[in-house]
Amino acid sequence: MKKILAIDVGGTKLIYALINEKGEFLTGVNRIPTPKNIEELKSLFKKIILENEQEIDMTAFATAGAVNITNTAVKSSTPNLPVGYNNIDFSQLSIKPVYVENDANAAAWAEYKLGAAKGDDNTITVTLGTGVGGGIIIEGKLLRGKSGRAGEVGSMKINGRGRICTCGRKDCWESYASGTGLKKTAYETALYDEIFNESIYKNKKPEEITTYDIIDGVNFNDEYSKKVFEIWKKDLITGLINLVDIFDTESIIISGGLGKFINASEAQEVINSEIVTGEVKVRLANMGNYAGMIGAALLAYEKFS
Amino acid sequence: MKKILAIDVGGTKLIYALINEKGEFLTGVNRIPTPKNIEELKSLFKKIILENEQEIDMTAFATAGAVNITNTAVKSSTPNLPVGYNNIDFSQLSIKPVYVENDANAAAWAEYKLGAAKGDDNTITVTLGTGVGGGIIIEGKLLRGKSGRAGEVGSMKINGRGRICTCGRKDCWESYASGTGLKKTAYETALYDEIFNESIYKNKKPEEITTYDIIDGVNFNDEYSKKVFEIWKKDLITGLINLVDIFDTESIIISGGLGKFINASEAQEVINSEIVTGEVKVRLANMGNYAGMIGAALLAYEKFS
Repeated sequence: MKKILAIDVGGTKLIYALINEKGEFLTGVNRIPTPKNIEELKSLFKKIILENEQEIDMTAFATAGAVNITNTAVKSSTPNLPVGYNNIDFSQLSIKPVYVENDANAAAWAEYKLGAAKGDDNTITVTLGTGVGGGIIIEGKLLRGKSGRAGEVGSMKINGRGRICTCGRKDCWESYASGTGLKKTAYETALYDEIFNESIYKNKKPEEITTYDIIDGVNFNDEYSKKVFEIWKKDLITGLINLVDIFDTESIIISGGLGKFINASEAQEVINSEIVTGEVKVRLANMGNYAGMIGAALLAYEKFS
Repeated sequence: MKKILAIDVGGTKLIYALINEKGEFLTGVNRIPTPKNIEELKSLFKKIILENEQEIDMTAFATAGAVNITNTAVKSSTPNLPVGYNNIDFSQLSIKPVYVENDANAAAWAEYKLGAAKGDDNTITVTLGTGVGGGIIIEGKLLRGKSGRAGEVGSMKINGRGRICTCGRKDCWESYASGTGLKKTAYETALYDEIFNESIYKNKKPEEITTYDIIDGVNFNDEYSKKVFEIWKKDLITGLINLVDIFDTESIIISGGLGKFINASEAQEVINSEIVTGEVKVRLANMGNYAGMIGAALLAYEKFS
């Protein structure tokens, strides 16, 4: 049995554990706030690795940001991680092999190997959080592209409402289908649609309405919240239809904090009524919050074994 | 040396020739109008094959329509081909092996093996004709998806102007970036933009302005035609940016009748200024009108050798 130190680096917290090559946890999961300073972050990486280095076979990182084609460094901008993060050569952090993969790719791999997409050799996992991430599996292989940056599905432009994305461009899918997108849709609908005047949130400032308000509002049968949620869902589904028509996958897996508010069978029906390729299954992810760690561990094992 | 009978089946004409495994022509290219009746079309297939069957090693079809995963039949609707075309089992047409592939996929394969994308293991060829077709190569393999229908890039929804596509859906990329799309953009601009009043086409009915009129008008420095062409190009480039961000390819190859009116280096500059993945090369296809035949022949050879 192999022992893999799996570390998931997010903007607010870092989690790690020992995992075997079957994706089973050998230890509990440790949780540490992500340092805001690059030297502190590097020291933390080294400390965690040093504590485990004797007993492990390899280290696997899942991280925000696009990872280079040799799986040794992060290449894209990572606004939630310290400046200098892109200069870390992960392969130099340990005397044993180190592997790094984008967190959405790692999570998709976990869903494919052990989770909701098990057995589907062509599958896409879309992660709905602050942004929209994607991990794409084609004939049992992770799509990485020429430079490791493939799968930037959140950057796909899906409509012409002219919304400015956090990346500075207009109309990225992410600017509509993410949590940030839901909040923006709530704001715009509050400003421009009279339905807001009857809402339970009518005394709130439009910019103060949160994604949680909308989710709660839907449960309270608030018409404004339901309308906002429907617009958000329609924008989400537009992008999913595009992906199915491009990739003709067996399944689409919906993951991330907002994913659980999607009715998968309803989404599947809408998507299958619109696509021009073959029927697709739509499912919610079932690997939980540790999918990134597990996926990275399995990928590291494949690479180094 | 192998002899491959390559047949390209289009809505208006059918062309065929003998090709070897290097993609070299062993005969001239024969050209026949495509029969409008399914029995006549099947008879024509059999006649062409019978005439060559003794000397060939295999037959390779490039065809309109999405092809099934075993490369034996067409699965999608093919409005320009006779009803019943989907029921043809191509593998039964000859006593020697028969292979069938979608024409856009076959053309992409030819560009990858011998043409503008040679050496680029990750590349997409986009064909701009009456519709928009795509062929996607990932790590040297054609992307076919679970059922053979992958690469329906023309069905990607790219904006919210609400244009109805010939497929019945709204806002497909094809409805903007194809020849049909250019004509629609010409029509809409003539109807709703005052610039038309100064155009060399101002005495034409908006619905009578053709794609050729627009191309000619650009050359005549007609402001209306230039505006129409710019809108069309912007819509085209929006979809190309999406594809690069999803696939992170080395190159994008632009093919088809309208492709030659694109300035590839200008398009490359715009695309690279917008993508979030690594830099991409944009090139015009250079395999010509026989790319479908050549690509199908090379793919058939790979499959049966």
